[in-house]
Amino acid sequence: MIKTPYLLFLGDAPDSLAAKVAQGIKDWRPDNAIGQFRLPGCKADLGLTDMTLGEARAAGAETLVIGVANRGGVISAAWLDVLVEALEKGFDVASGLHNLLRDEPRLVEAAQRTGRTLHDVRVPPPGVKYPIANGEPRKGKRVLAVGTDCSVGKMYTALALDASMRERGLKSTFRATGQTGILITGEGIPLDAVVADFMAGSVEWLTPDNDPDHWDIIEGQGSLFHVSYSGVTMALVHGGQADALILCDEPTRDHMRGLPGYKLPSLEQLRDTALPLAQVANPDCKVVGVSVNTQHLDEQAAVDHLKAVEDRMGLPTVDPFRQGADRLAAALEAL
Amino acid sequence: MIKTPYLLFLGDAPDSLAAKVAQGIKDWRPDNAIGQFRLPGCKADLGLTDMTLGEARAAGAETLVIGVANRGGVISAAWLDVLVEALEKGFDVASGLHNLLRDEPRLVEAAQRTGRTLHDVRVPPPGVKYPIANGEPRKGKRVLAVGTDCSVGKMYTALALDASMRERGLKSTFRATGQTGILITGEGIPLDAVVADFMAGSVEWLTPDNDPDHWDIIEGQGSLFHVSYSGVTMALVHGGQADALILCDEPTRDHMRGLPGYKLPSLEQLRDTALPLAQVANPDCKVVGVSVNTQHLDEQAAVDHLKAVEDRMGLPTVDPFRQGADRLAAALEAL
Repeated sequence: MIKTPYLLFLGDAPDSLAAKVAQGIKDWRPDNAIGQFRLPGCKADLGLTDMTLGEARAAGAETLVIGVANRGGVISAAWLDVLVEALEKGFDVASGLHNLLRDEPRLVEAAQRTGRTLHDVRVPPPGVKYPIANGEPRKGKRVLAVGTDCSVGKMYTALALDASMRERGLKSTFRATGQTGILITGEGIPLDAVVADFMAGSVEWLTPDNDPDHWDIIEGQGSLFHVSYSGVTMALVHGGQADALILCDEPTRDHMRGLPGYKLPSLEQLRDTALPLAQVANPDCKVVGVSVNTQHLDEQAAVDHLKAVEDRMGLPTVDPFRQGADRLAAALEAL
Repeated sequence: MIKTPYLLFLGDAPDSLAAKVAQGIKDWRPDNAIGQFRLPGCKADLGLTDMTLGEARAAGAETLVIGVANRGGVISAAWLDVLVEALEKGFDVASGLHNLLRDEPRLVEAAQRTGRTLHDVRVPPPGVKYPIANGEPRKGKRVLAVGTDCSVGKMYTALALDASMRERGLKSTFRATGQTGILITGEGIPLDAVVADFMAGSVEWLTPDNDPDHWDIIEGQGSLFHVSYSGVTMALVHGGQADALILCDEPTRDHMRGLPGYKLPSLEQLRDTALPLAQVANPDCKVVGVSVNTQHLDEQAAVDHLKAVEDRMGLPTVDPFRQGADRLAAALEAL
């Protein structure tokens, strides 16, 4: 668990897109984002107060979060200077970069010297041992977003749904399964870095017994139809023990992400594949709605497409970015 | 890749069952089994020549294979004495034990000193980096055994099928995906110990391009219906890119292995779940046969059951232990 609130490190981000982890934190957990820290030449700006390390600590920030991708995959000397100083000023440091903080000798030395913690959220924390899944029914409710493809908006859907559930006064927890989600909420599992035998068990661990009227909103990963990552998705479907599935799609894509020879399945194929598999772990599981990422359609085309899908599938169908996820939350509340 | 042939270390095995890895090597790769090494009190006997380390080396043995489970999960001092002496006499040492050889300082020291190799086949070799699956069609043919449950005889089926294919003069390679299979053949991937993102890619790596008329016989793992391990199975289904599936069942089991609340699916459910998923990676995939583990049925009940399944499923149905796998090999040859 990463201590909040955060100071968001934007480094020398060449553009806003490079800072999308920081943007996600600011959008979904604004209370966690005390300020931003930018190096000379940084082209990203979250609209937060620029703070020195000292100012942010004085304002209560506990963790410096690297909210930006690093160029060329190397943690530069300029970054290291800031990160070491942050540790010395009493920050923990958290990162979702491929290159791990724990592989940087200067950071390891400084963290040991200062007693601070380095969080590499791309891999399981050292010493964590996830269980093997036991499949036993758990108390409380769970919903899982499953996609026709990778990167169709499953995390966004889950975060928007979590927000809508809370607005309705329902008990809800977003359960992160990837590094961006973990940095946004401060906890979760980096499922794609878990050893195969423990994948489903780590999902059970992530979504334990809860109040009967509490919903875990589980972040999806991959797709049952994406041959590179379908095993990860399968572990979510079985470990998640979902009471409800939400189907996610991006309608303009002409092939699976990274797989030029592979067409996306239809929403019907996704439903007819995912639901029976989910019912192995939870016989009462239902498909309750559809979330469509219409960012590549203009407003009218998006509205028309959502209406057509809703008529075809007989399920509430929204683009949570354009419309919010309240209709999906209503579908869960009605279950 | 583990150097062959082997001297099979049976240690102080309390019974034959404890030595089932060694038995598998002797049954399926007798040419790899030069002799056996037993400690005082050993109750297992493969019927091989008992050899000292020196005799086995003189006879050409390259690797001492621990073919037995260790009591209490500890590698005892008596074992370590033998393993260190083996390294000093020029053997590599291979093990599928949960406790790794590489975690034993005496063995690490001796291996470094002698320039020999420790093979812990339960985990990927140090330094190996499996790719992320790319889903590109590969040359050659592949068959995968999928099960209604874990431990229903998928490895046995694959090994028997590989033997039958060779008897027919066909090109065939058994591709091991678990520790026993790896020790039997000397190579493979410990799929359940691979990091999630690389599971399907490791299967692609294991079964590369080959002659158009060559068959890879891929060892199955887990079950799409076993909630603890289904993600591993899914990675095999997609990474394996199978041209043919063989359905495996154990008809007397009243619940899924280790999951008291879970019933086994029918063979029809298995077929209707596994085939469409396999066709995502290989649209031409077909289900070609059924393998039933009838060890808990008497001869007549077994024959009756196999006949009933064959009539019901319309597929060649055998128990490869009782009948061999030739009818399955014939089904592959006819494809």
